[in-house]
Amino acid sequence: MRVGLIGLGKMGGNMRERLRRGGVEVVGLDRNKEISDAVDEADLVAKLDGPRVIWLMVPIQAVTPVIETLRPLLSPGDIVIDGGNSKWTHDAKHAAYLAEAGIEFLDAGTSGGVWGLENGYALMVGGPESVVATAMPVFEALKPEGEFGFVHAGSHGAGHFAKMVHNGIEYGLMQAYAEGWELLEASDIVTNVPEIFESWREGTVIRSWLLDLMVLALQDDPHLDEIEGYAEDSGEGRWTVNAAVDMGVPVPTIAASLFARFVSRQEDSPAMKMVAAMRNQFGGHAVQVSKD
Amino acid sequence: MRVGLIGLGKMGGNMRERLRRGGVEVVGLDRNKEISDAVDEADLVAKLDGPRVIWLMVPIQAVTPVIETLRPLLSPGDIVIDGGNSKWTHDAKHAAYLAEAGIEFLDAGTSGGVWGLENGYALMVGGPESVVATAMPVFEALKPEGEFGFVHAGSHGAGHFAKMVHNGIEYGLMQAYAEGWELLEASDIVTNVPEIFESWREGTVIRSWLLDLMVLALQDDPHLDEIEGYAEDSGEGRWTVNAAVDMGVPVPTIAASLFARFVSRQEDSPAMKMVAAMRNQFGGHAVQVSKD
Amino acid sequence: MRVGLIGLGKMGGNMRERLRRGGVEVVGLDRNKEISDAVDEADLVAKLDGPRVIWLMVPIQAVTPVIETLRPLLSPGDIVIDGGNSKWTHDAKHAAYLAEAGIEFLDAGTSGGVWGLENGYALMVGGPESVVATAMPVFEALKPEGEFGFVHAGSHGAGHFAKMVHNGIEYGLMQAYAEGWELLEASDIVTNVPEIFESWREGTVIRSWLLDLMVLALQDDPHLDEIEGYAEDSGEGRWTVNAAVDMGVPVPTIAASLFARFVSRQEDSPAMKMVAAMRNQFGGHAVQVSKD
Amino acid sequence: MRVGLIGLGKMGGNMRERLRRGGVEVVGLDRNKEISDAVDEADLVAKLDGPRVIWLMVPIQAVTPVIETLRPLLSPGDIVIDGGNSKWTHDAKHAAYLAEAGIEFLDAGTSGGVWGLENGYALMVGGPESVVATAMPVFEALKPEGEFGFVHAGSHGAGHFAKMVHNGIEYGLMQAYAEGWELLEASDIVTNVPEIFESWREGTVIRSWLLDLMVLALQDDPHLDEIEGYAEDSGEGRWTVNAAVDMGVPVPTIAASLFARFVSRQEDSPAMKMVAAMRNQFGGHAVQVSKD
Repeated sequence: MRVGLIGLGKMGGNMRERLRRGGVEVVGLDRNKEISDAVDEADLVAKLDGPRVIWLMVPIQAVTPVIETLRPLLSPGDIVIDGGNSKWTHDAKHAAYLAEAGIEFLDAGTSGGVWGLENGYALMVGGPESVVATAMPVFEALKPEGEFGFVHAGSHGAGHFAKMVHNGIEYGLMQAYAEGWELLEASDIVTNVPEIFESWREGTVIRSWLLDLMVLALQDDPHLDEIEGYAEDSGEGRWTVNAAVDMGVPVPTIAASLFARFVSRQEDSPAMKMVAAMRNQFGGHAVQVSKD
Repeated sequence: MRVGLIGLGKMGGNMRERLRRGGVEVVGLDRNKEISDAVDEADLVAKLDGPRVIWLMVPIQAVTPVIETLRPLLSPGDIVIDGGNSKWTHDAKHAAYLAEAGIEFLDAGTSGGVWGLENGYALMVGGPESVVATAMPVFEALKPEGEFGFVHAGSHGAGHFAKMVHNGIEYGLMQAYAEGWELLEASDIVTNVPEIFESWREGTVIRSWLLDLMVLALQDDPHLDEIEGYAEDSGEGRWTVNAAVDMGVPVPTIAASLFARFVSRQEDSPAMKMVAAMRNQFGGHAVQVSKD
Repeated sequence: MRVGLIGLGKMGGNMRERLRRGGVEVVGLDRNKEISDAVDEADLVAKLDGPRVIWLMVPIQAVTPVIETLRPLLSPGDIVIDGGNSKWTHDAKHAAYLAEAGIEFLDAGTSGGVWGLENGYALMVGGPESVVATAMPVFEALKPEGEFGFVHAGSHGAGHFAKMVHNGIEYGLMQAYAEGWELLEASDIVTNVPEIFESWREGTVIRSWLLDLMVLALQDDPHLDEIEGYAEDSGEGRWTVNAAVDMGVPVPTIAASLFARFVSRQEDSPAMKMVAAMRNQFGGHAVQVSKD
Repeated sequence: MRVGLIGLGKMGGNMRERLRRGGVEVVGLDRNKEISDAVDEADLVAKLDGPRVIWLMVPIQAVTPVIETLRPLLSPGDIVIDGGNSKWTHDAKHAAYLAEAGIEFLDAGTSGGVWGLENGYALMVGGPESVVATAMPVFEALKPEGEFGFVHAGSHGAGHFAKMVHNGIEYGLMQAYAEGWELLEASDIVTNVPEIFESWREGTVIRSWLLDLMVLALQDDPHLDEIEGYAEDSGEGRWTVNAAVDMGVPVPTIAASLFARFVSRQEDSPAMKMVAAMRNQFGGHAVQVSKD
């Protein structure tokens, strides 16, 4: 099988490598021509046989332009797969746009990060069953070995929706572990915190891959002295909370996790300025004068 | 009526003044002899007629020692009122300890802060009805004018419990207003934030005394530039959450408010260090190197 | 002054009445012709002199169609005010659409509910200063007497944004009071809960209009036995959380309040089914078999 | 090695079995004499050689009485290990009480549930290093095979503290997964929810043992129709939140998880009754009349 792959960044580059190791021929395209296998979209399309399968691994804002470029170049029955971190609400629009030209669309949520090249990428795919079946060799090469790591989640958008929820859960899990770690660190009687986390890798209810990663991090830096308590969020956490709000689903821990990240990035908290101001007004409690 | 008042600090001093303005004679006692009306507890007791009423306005850790000093000096039927920020679980113990000598006890939660001298102190009292009745002239002098501001909340401990819940609610209210203010401040299209808060003082669902105080604070400092986002907590918020946890009562907003204060006082968040460390481990996301 | 008012439902009908009491002539239009003063939009426009001021008090989904109907009927310099519970993101679009025909637009968030007719409506207005000035007599008639209750919040959308935040705060305040009430009700030693709330109306930090309403509710039904723990949400709470998420502003108490309402409307909680299922899997803890 | 084991219930009975499989002789004692190896504490002590090691696996309220019974029977240098779900604050008291007679004490938090017999029990131990070393053969037999599953966490109480935090984390993890599951179930476009969870077992950031258990639960009952959304809490979650509050550590997700369990057990929510009552008061919003 031969597949087109647009976007050869940190994720896309590794995916090309994993596909090739899995026996899939890849024609890669990137703005960086030194790593590209094609000069442009037309060249990429010309180098593929129908029904073509083209995997997009581009930033969210580039997906629509790339699809608009591709549509006139493709033929009915060709398949475009959006494997990036796209918002699930975009997928039905892209599917409808391509369907006008008889072109198929799949959305593929992808998890695996820097470990994906070796371990495989967990894939959550949305779209029609028959189209999933046609693209299956690509998924087979990307996914982890063994019986897990791939799912046909539902119709258009379901792949990215499932990936979004995966990340929302991830936010909650990370925050829960982090709170527990802070509590252990704050205790006077607990002296061996990294050893505790390591011991939890077997026999406990909370053993997990994230726990394994915490152990690695604490081996390097037992109190995380070198790391600032500053955490970005990558969009999916926000989408999860917004989707939950729109759907009337309570997500207290996922929302709390997201808000904790927001706070971690504030130089000073406006809300807490106001709380301090009110305490000062009613109780004469001293405020700390801003150093800015 | 004549009453003993032990503890003439910021709160106790103002209460003596308000009692006197209300026609109650006060014998005050303080470690600061310059402001004291008695030289010690024995002198204070000697200067009162039975049934004596002695109001304690001392720090929480001083309550038990003062009660232990008073018990041998007092007579059956005398009344000790703990008006400080004591924990409600202490009250039944103090009541039982004094009851062994036939001495009565009341707990009085007190709200009013620096405004209490002028406006009166809201009082929440726990203990037997007949004892409350005997002490009523004291409560009458301290409470605000009008029909509100005093309640016999229940049996021993109920006064401090009600005051604790009052403060727990206060934490939640302050945080909710503060979040709204932060959101308005963050908006590009909203330009007149202090004016908005001022306008809310009439006709809205959220008008309140705390809102009035916010307006005062914003008049001084429209963006609170002078104030650090750093808020202490005074114990009652913690007790509220702990009591709720022990009683199986969900208090998500009160707990969130308390945690926001905890975070406001952290130089750096240990939990967020761990979140950053995990993100780095699985995603290769850069961490911010600690500046410490 | 004469003003057009489209939408004479629960809110709009009372506003017509308050405007008339305030000396403003009102031409009202409603789908219910029995209460209408005009037969349709064209008739309403014909009955007004330029520059016309037309206040919309229609459901959110009706705003765009009404504006589309009005635009060809109006003249440059006329003013359309959207006084309904519209989403702030819609306002700039409506303003731009009307501006193509030289028509002005204001958005007016309105608070006051069933009490507005007597007490006046708190108004938060977005749009250009000069347009606000032209429409000022309408605002003057609707707002509460006294110096508060009206604000020019900022540019287009700022009125509805401020109203949205008002409601978000309201959610948090209500939840905080409700948690405190639940905690008092759960206590063995607190016996006089309605009296406690009543006492808090003076001298406390938490006195407010919402507190006054709680007192009224508890006078009717001291333990709220007659009321189900079921609370709708009207949209603004969701918008507040979504806006905060999009703007990176932490709103833990407002979000918690919203989620508590979501939960209150669930027959059974899917999330808690899953928690029970996990406990059963790892601990052999019994699950409760669903009665459905 | 020979060890005494007091308490042969669901946990203790399995531990006796695992110890025996691991080559440790066990003298078991239980109120149920049919399963006991000794008739009472004196008999149990008589059947052990010094330095004796006695493992307690009794309910929290039975620990102090059992220790009081044992002290006069034991000799200096003997070791009592509290392996039950005791509160960490009790451990220093028990250690001091036994130390008066020269008897050593260890606290051992134990995780593993119904899977412990086969997989081993994760152990978190608090107390002096030399005492831990003496008791090590017992720990070796109970813990999982491999390098993990045992930790000497710190001084007296550290074992139970670590176990408490383990369970607090567990609450947060379970809630985060459960929220994600609810969100997927609520989606129209996601059709294969159990398959999604199964696919996540490889290649994802959120793979874990809890995820494996969710997959098992969904295999039996794909929408958990048979299970009520009702979740008990076993104490450690409450202790975690209370400890965090006392130590000034923010734990928003763990607290939210605990509160979600509280709500799951309420027939009706008092707090939401009050929210509904307030909405009715200010907005004329209908309330649902209680069916009780």
